Amino acid sequence: MADKRVYFFGNGEAEGQGNDKALLGGKGAGLAEMTRLGLPVPPGFTITTAVCHSYSKEGGKLPGDLRAEMEVALRKVEGIVGAKFGDAANPLLVSVRSGGAVSMPGMMDTILNLGLSDHSIEGLIARSGDARFAYDSYRRLVAMYGDVVLGMKPESKHAPDPFEVALAKKKRERDVELDNELSAEDLKALVAEFKGLIKTLTPHQFPEDPWEQLLGATQAVFRSWNNPRAQTYRSLNNISEAGGTAVNVQAMVFGNLGLDCATGVAFTRDPSTGQPRFYGEYLINAQGEDVVAGIRTPLPINASGLVADPAQTLEAKMPVVYQQLDQVRKQLESHYKDMQDIEFTIQRGKLYLLQTRTGKRTAQSAVRIATDMVKEGLIDKATAVMRIQPAQLDQLLHPMLDPKANRAVIAKGLPASPGAATGRIVFSAEEAEARGKKGERVILVRVETSPEDISGMHHAVGILTSRGGMTSHAAVVARGMGKPCVVGCGEMVIDYEQRQITARGQRVREADLLTIDGSTGEVMLGEVATVQAGGSAQFDELMTWVDEFRRLQVRTNVDTPADAALARRFGAQGIGLCRTEHMFFEADRILAVREMILADGASGRRAALAKIAPMQRGDFEGIFTAMNGLPVTIRLLDPPLHEFLPHEEEDILAVAQALGRDVEVVRAKNAALAEFNPMLGLRGCRLGLLHPEIYEMQARAILEAACNCDKKGVAVKPEIMIPLVATAEELKRLKEMVDQIAKRVFEEQGRQIPYLVGTMIELPRAAILADQIAEHAEFFSFGTNDLTQMTLGISRDDSARFLPGFVEQGIFAADPFQILDQEGVGTLIRWAVERGRSKKPKLKMGICGEHGGEPSSVAFCHTVGLDYVSCSPYRVPIARLAAAQVALKERK
Amino acid sequence: MADKRVYFFGNGEAEGQGNDKALLGGKGAGLAEMTRLGLPVPPGFTITTAVCHSYSKEGGKLPGDLRAEMEVALRKVEGIVGAKFGDAANPLLVSVRSGGAVSMPGMMDTILNLGLSDHSIEGLIARSGDARFAYDSYRRLVAMYGDVVLGMKPESKHAPDPFEVALAKKKRERDVELDNELSAEDLKALVAEFKGLIKTLTPHQFPEDPWEQLLGATQAVFRSWNNPRAQTYRSLNNISEAGGTAVNVQAMVFGNLGLDCATGVAFTRDPSTGQPRFYGEYLINAQGEDVVAGIRTPLPINASGLVADPAQTLEAKMPVVYQQLDQVRKQLESHYKDMQDIEFTIQRGKLYLLQTRTGKRTAQSAVRIATDMVKEGLIDKATAVMRIQPAQLDQLLHPMLDPKANRAVIAKGLPASPGAATGRIVFSAEEAEARGKKGERVILVRVETSPEDISGMHHAVGILTSRGGMTSHAAVVARGMGKPCVVGCGEMVIDYEQRQITARGQRVREADLLTIDGSTGEVMLGEVATVQAGGSAQFDELMTWVDEFRRLQVRTNVDTPADAALARRFGAQGIGLCRTEHMFFEADRILAVREMILADGASGRRAALAKIAPMQRGDFEGIFTAMNGLPVTIRLLDPPLHEFLPHEEEDILAVAQALGRDVEVVRAKNAALAEFNPMLGLRGCRLGLLHPEIYEMQARAILEAACNCDKKGVAVKPEIMIPLVATAEELKRLKEMVDQIAKRVFEEQGRQIPYLVGTMIELPRAAILADQIAEHAEFFSFGTNDLTQMTLGISRDDSARFLPGFVEQGIFAADPFQILDQEGVGTLIRWAVERGRSKKPKLKMGICGEHGGEPSSVAFCHTVGLDYVSCSPYRVPIARLAAAQVALKERK
Repeated sequence: MADKRVYFFGNGEAEGQGNDKALLGGKGAGLAEMTRLGLPVPPGFTITTAVCHSYSKEGGKLPGDLRAEMEVALRKVEGIVGAKFGDAANPLLVSVRSGGAVSMPGMMDTILNLGLSDHSIEGLIARSGDARFAYDSYRRLVAMYGDVVLGMKPESKHAPDPFEVALAKKKRERDVELDNELSAEDLKALVAEFKGLIKTLTPHQFPEDPWEQLLGATQAVFRSWNNPRAQTYRSLNNISEAGGTAVNVQAMVFGNLGLDCATGVAFTRDPSTGQPRFYGEYLINAQGEDVVAGIRTPLPINASGLVADPAQTLEAKMPVVYQQLDQVRKQLESHYKDMQDIEFTIQRGKLYLLQTRTGKRTAQSAVRIATDMVKEGLIDKATAVMRIQPAQLDQLLHPMLDPKANRAVIAKGLPASPGAATGRIVFSAEEAEARGKKGERVILVRVETSPEDISGMHHAVGILTSRGGMTSHAAVVARGMGKPCVVGCGEMVIDYEQRQITARGQRVREADLLTIDGSTGEVMLGEVATVQAGGSAQFDELMTWVDEFRRLQVRTNVDTPADAALARRFGAQGIGLCRTEHMFFEADRILAVREMILADGASGRRAALAKIAPMQRGDFEGIFTAMNGLPVTIRLLDPPLHEFLPHEEEDILAVAQALGRDVEVVRAKNAALAEFNPMLGLRGCRLGLLHPEIYEMQARAILEAACNCDKKGVAVKPEIMIPLVATAEELKRLKEMVDQIAKRVFEEQGRQIPYLVGTMIELPRAAILADQIAEHAEFFSFGTNDLTQMTLGISRDDSARFLPGFVEQGIFAADPFQILDQEGVGTLIRWAVERGRSKKPKLKMGICGEHGGEPSSVAFCHTVGLDYVSCSPYRVPIARLAAAQVALKERK
Repeated sequence: MADKRVYFFGNGEAEGQGNDKALLGGKGAGLAEMTRLGLPVPPGFTITTAVCHSYSKEGGKLPGDLRAEMEVALRKVEGIVGAKFGDAANPLLVSVRSGGAVSMPGMMDTILNLGLSDHSIEGLIARSGDARFAYDSYRRLVAMYGDVVLGMKPESKHAPDPFEVALAKKKRERDVELDNELSAEDLKALVAEFKGLIKTLTPHQFPEDPWEQLLGATQAVFRSWNNPRAQTYRSLNNISEAGGTAVNVQAMVFGNLGLDCATGVAFTRDPSTGQPRFYGEYLINAQGEDVVAGIRTPLPINASGLVADPAQTLEAKMPVVYQQLDQVRKQLESHYKDMQDIEFTIQRGKLYLLQTRTGKRTAQSAVRIATDMVKEGLIDKATAVMRIQPAQLDQLLHPMLDPKANRAVIAKGLPASPGAATGRIVFSAEEAEARGKKGERVILVRVETSPEDISGMHHAVGILTSRGGMTSHAAVVARGMGKPCVVGCGEMVIDYEQRQITARGQRVREADLLTIDGSTGEVMLGEVATVQAGGSAQFDELMTWVDEFRRLQVRTNVDTPADAALARRFGAQGIGLCRTEHMFFEADRILAVREMILADGASGRRAALAKIAPMQRGDFEGIFTAMNGLPVTIRLLDPPLHEFLPHEEEDILAVAQALGRDVEVVRAKNAALAEFNPMLGLRGCRLGLLHPEIYEMQARAILEAACNCDKKGVAVKPEIMIPLVATAEELKRLKEMVDQIAKRVFEEQGRQIPYLVGTMIELPRAAILADQIAEHAEFFSFGTNDLTQMTLGISRDDSARFLPGFVEQGIFAADPFQILDQEGVGTLIRWAVERGRSKKPKLKMGICGEHGGEPSSVAFCHTVGLDYVSCSPYRVPIARLAAAQVALKERK
């Protein structure tokens, strides 16, 4: 027999269980597990993800014997519910929902009320005693079936859905505003009209046979795995294409049968702050999709929320059910040992659970929940550390609005995803994407968002909606992306036509600057000053656990004492890359730098360098002092000299005048130094070899600064780094030069400072010949930015015209400048580590490219045996966490 | 006991032998071997190269017990000669000469007449009966000793040598012109003056003790191994620095004791043409150095030469000695089985041999000698093939002067090194070097050349001297370099001061264009038309042997049918790289190319491409026809599109007008396409993926051309090559595209042509992930130009400012764009071969960078297991020969 393909659940028994996520999807596994826990779950069955693969592989055909297996399960469901699928008297209705191993909220298709037909409708009317409800359910089924199964859903969301058009027409005819103002007769007529639309617009008819409906819906769910928005979502969220989706077929329960019915979603703890309070929203007399879709703004389930009338809560309206739900909450948390996101429906006073899954949460909330759960004895420290997504920490660490700054608040909505963002207003996802790609900071303002907006949301710095609650699409997605978001800001009127917002009497137009604060829900005009984010006490505690687990050191890439101090507060254990070129651009010395470049020979260059030397020494003293006791790696000058020359005519004139040189000299120098491919030109150690006086000045400034700091009692650990080495000989000569200067400086100063001389490994050749280079190096630092450029033959500055598109199309797995290309560049690094250590087993090695703060790249660095990563200050905690997580994974 | 350090030879016995070159140097080994053969060699001994190493290592100290070993050997020499070193009555005089394993003509120092002192001079006068000769020998010793041992030789050759100044003063006082017009008394006075100069200008005195002289001279020779011109020579000729020199101490014989004395050099065959005739030059009553230094123009040894009065030959003047010498010639050739270069001296009618070594020869001569010797049964074919230096073939293959062209001959000299060269006149080696480095073609014109001129000669395209013979410094060095050279052109008067030449009444100035023909000795005004070189019958025969031995195929890099035909004549077995971008620049289509680039969308581009398509098809038909039966690899468009746009204002206007586009559109496009690092930008397969219509047009043109040729009976083997692949996915998609087009074209044309789709491996990532890429490739072609650029991070276009200097300084072992960087780039190639073949064991692999015609790189390609190399047409025979040689070496 083939593998089991249909897993039944219901009435306290389930064939699957919670850890069958890969096979049953997250939803299916959750339903099975909840059933096993004895929770009130409507019975049903799950068709496995293996069938999804088979469906794709066979070009869109279900296995021939699948129906037989489904029938066995459906019989059991009928037995439990006491109704029969397709029955005229007492029809069983079912929902068909997708569910992959990883949640993709709103991405894929759902069909409700399956089993209704002209044959069974009378039974539903009779059993529910509500013809309006029955026809409403029926017309919804026909429309969903047409849209989802028969492909009538318009490709563009700007094109009208024919069913919506017919519905709107009916409402106009009846002169009513809301759907539920239509009568049973109207809805019955709509059912017929909808069926007519299917017949006219497709080669198909609406199937009266419930099995035809069920199999059609099953196939549609499998097909939806590969719809473009699902693919985009997976690509943005690094979800594997190979997973596939399961199909969940479950007995319908209705939250819209009257005022004793409701539907809602809840989180077992606050997903925004992490506070241990039961947090959720519900709607009386509504279908479940109504809450998530953000069409009506739901009410809080209890009064511990921020707003709302206590009398309107579920706790107040249905106290018994609420207590039951609160019990479920406790049971689920103690079972899953994590915060859960649940969906429930109340049908005529009876609670049903439709879903449980690990709740998405903000960084702040994740940290709070993880540390609280350790204290509650639910999880251990290692588990807590594994619970935080490193990339999410960005939210916690980036600046927040300055509490003292003036805020021109024009509206307030729900604080859906924390953090502050300032950007220019755009009113469509397309616009957000187009302008975001150009590097503009935009705020996407919508009445509500939908899955089609995903890409635009990704390119916006913040999201603002006028409708929808904390669990609306916009809120859920924004939290997942770690983007500031304010939702349900009803006092704001959005006019797409005029491209403007009106709120509290103010009018704001497209492209105006707007600031939103996702932690308070405030919407402000213009830009508002920000301050440094403060980590919470929980965050600090978590980070001490992180440091207990990690092996990898984390340093930082900074060029100034202020940034050095900031990085140190974030836990940096030294500087991995201090670039000296930024110092060359400082206003007080750029003229001397230019004088140096324009000088006619080494002696002229030396004279100009003598002016720069004391300033460089001062720079280094500042940095050494800020990093007292920690190692500081300083890279000698790297960029080609022409980068320091003026290129605009006006600037050329000014420089010539300031230096008393002929303007032609400046022009000629510009021409002489111009390069076809500066990235591959006269830079790095090539400069140091051709014009030794530059590196000599820098080495002397570093070592003199070290001596001066040492005199003041600052503990200095300078590491001098030679860039762009291709041959061992280059490093050998420059190391000799530095060592000679050190000898002289120490003699002059009468003291000895331990220092290291090492090199960047940033050319493929250096990686390949790392054994030769190691003989002259006291450390290696992988410059993965340049190493990526050389290995892939891609100039980062020129890549925008093709690389993002290639990543989207899957030609490149990811942007190699964001996520280290482990197969290509990583192989060179692995090789260089092995070869370098074959000559010097304890050679210190680190990485100082921007990958040093990217979690998967940090994990790679740990695995290949580097000693440290180095990244920008804000990323230091992220790198620390990623380093701890990889060390913990390794233990397993 | 330590290793033996002193090797005696003399009187038919020798402690060393001919294959001790590494230990005894070439000269020492040759002297030992000739002694063993019973040839008349003055006795002496050789101090090994091991002592040279020890001398350097010990910071310039001879081993303490070396003198004792030397004394033992010297006793034997004294016994044979019947004279005593330093003896007052019958002094033994010796020469001290350097001699490394590889000959470095004129590079290092020699001291003659050692053993003379105020004590022994009387003995020499008595024994020679010639006081003038004796004092002349003495004053030469003192001067050489001062210059060489005591460091008085001026560093710049423009600075006066104090001994020369004193000599010139003496001649002025005596009112004579030539040295030999000075009397014994004058020379005696000069000896005293010279000694005074040493005392005044150095802290030393001329040593009267002969052993002090001998040990001083020995040390000076060891020191000279590291003098700068010797280092330059070794670097230019790829001679290892580790070799060291031996020292040869040998009893003096004198060619300047009277008219029954002579000195000369000879080649056992003609070093210029290879003809089997005894070829040499001599001077009566002269010291050996006089012939080589080119100070007097010597006479031919026999009448078979080109010029000269038969009565003046050695054969006529000293018939017995000549017959003896001719016997030696035969004996040496049958012993060494190669052409020998010998030095001899005739002292009072008695022949002495001072040196034998393998003679340097022109390419033409090398081919002739090798093939002749096979026929004579001296060597086998494999040995013949190993005898030709691949790089030398350049001489044979490059164009020669058109016999029908007008020649404004202004002078004629000796045809010292064949081939023709046209360039601008320079009068100093420094100038030649400076302008040659800038890429100018210059002819170096000197009265004579000296070792200091080596670097300048290297940078000149041809060398012309007014003095010196076929074995003068200029002639020997030029032949070694494979550079055209005319020497001894006495009818030409060179005026360094006025920077002009006068010849046959014409005046030619610096920077005027001059052409020299090293095969005829003609010197011509202006540029003379050239024609294709014709290989000789011997060359053709040799190349058939070459092809028997090699495994590696040799293809060519050409873009036109004419070049394809030329390469085929040179033996190319297919095209390894046909670049399509050159075709895009053709006058009849560049406008359409620009129209394509300026088009606003894919459809506009397609319209313009449709105009180019038939022309491209025609290009390919021409090439396929020229290569009938052989494979043709065509690379799809590689360079970034901006390379095809006009950049000068004038051209921009013209293009805008011609295409009816606004000039702003052209400017905007230029700006939009500009790249910071075009080498790492939007080019190669990235273009093909972003604008598929371009590659589609090219693939179609190739395959339609193939069908058209097939119809005409031309056997076509197209290989379509995708450039700049970094990920397997890129190749996969483009291969699918080509395969689809092929399917369509073959359906349209009703025929099937076998074709391959493969890729360049030119990015480090492609080499690293060659296994993944191999899955979609039908061949690999290593693009070592780009692979070198990426691996080393050096833009070839920008490297001129630092790379040549770094090579000179030894920071880079060689220019990696000329000689494949086997350690770095080669490691990637080796890796890619292994990984590629791990997936497809028979995957065809070749190299199409410019290294494909460089002998050491060809050998590497053989060793790593490539199937073919591909190079420019002229280099095809070089590659064939290099491929055969590496295969032969492997057999051993």
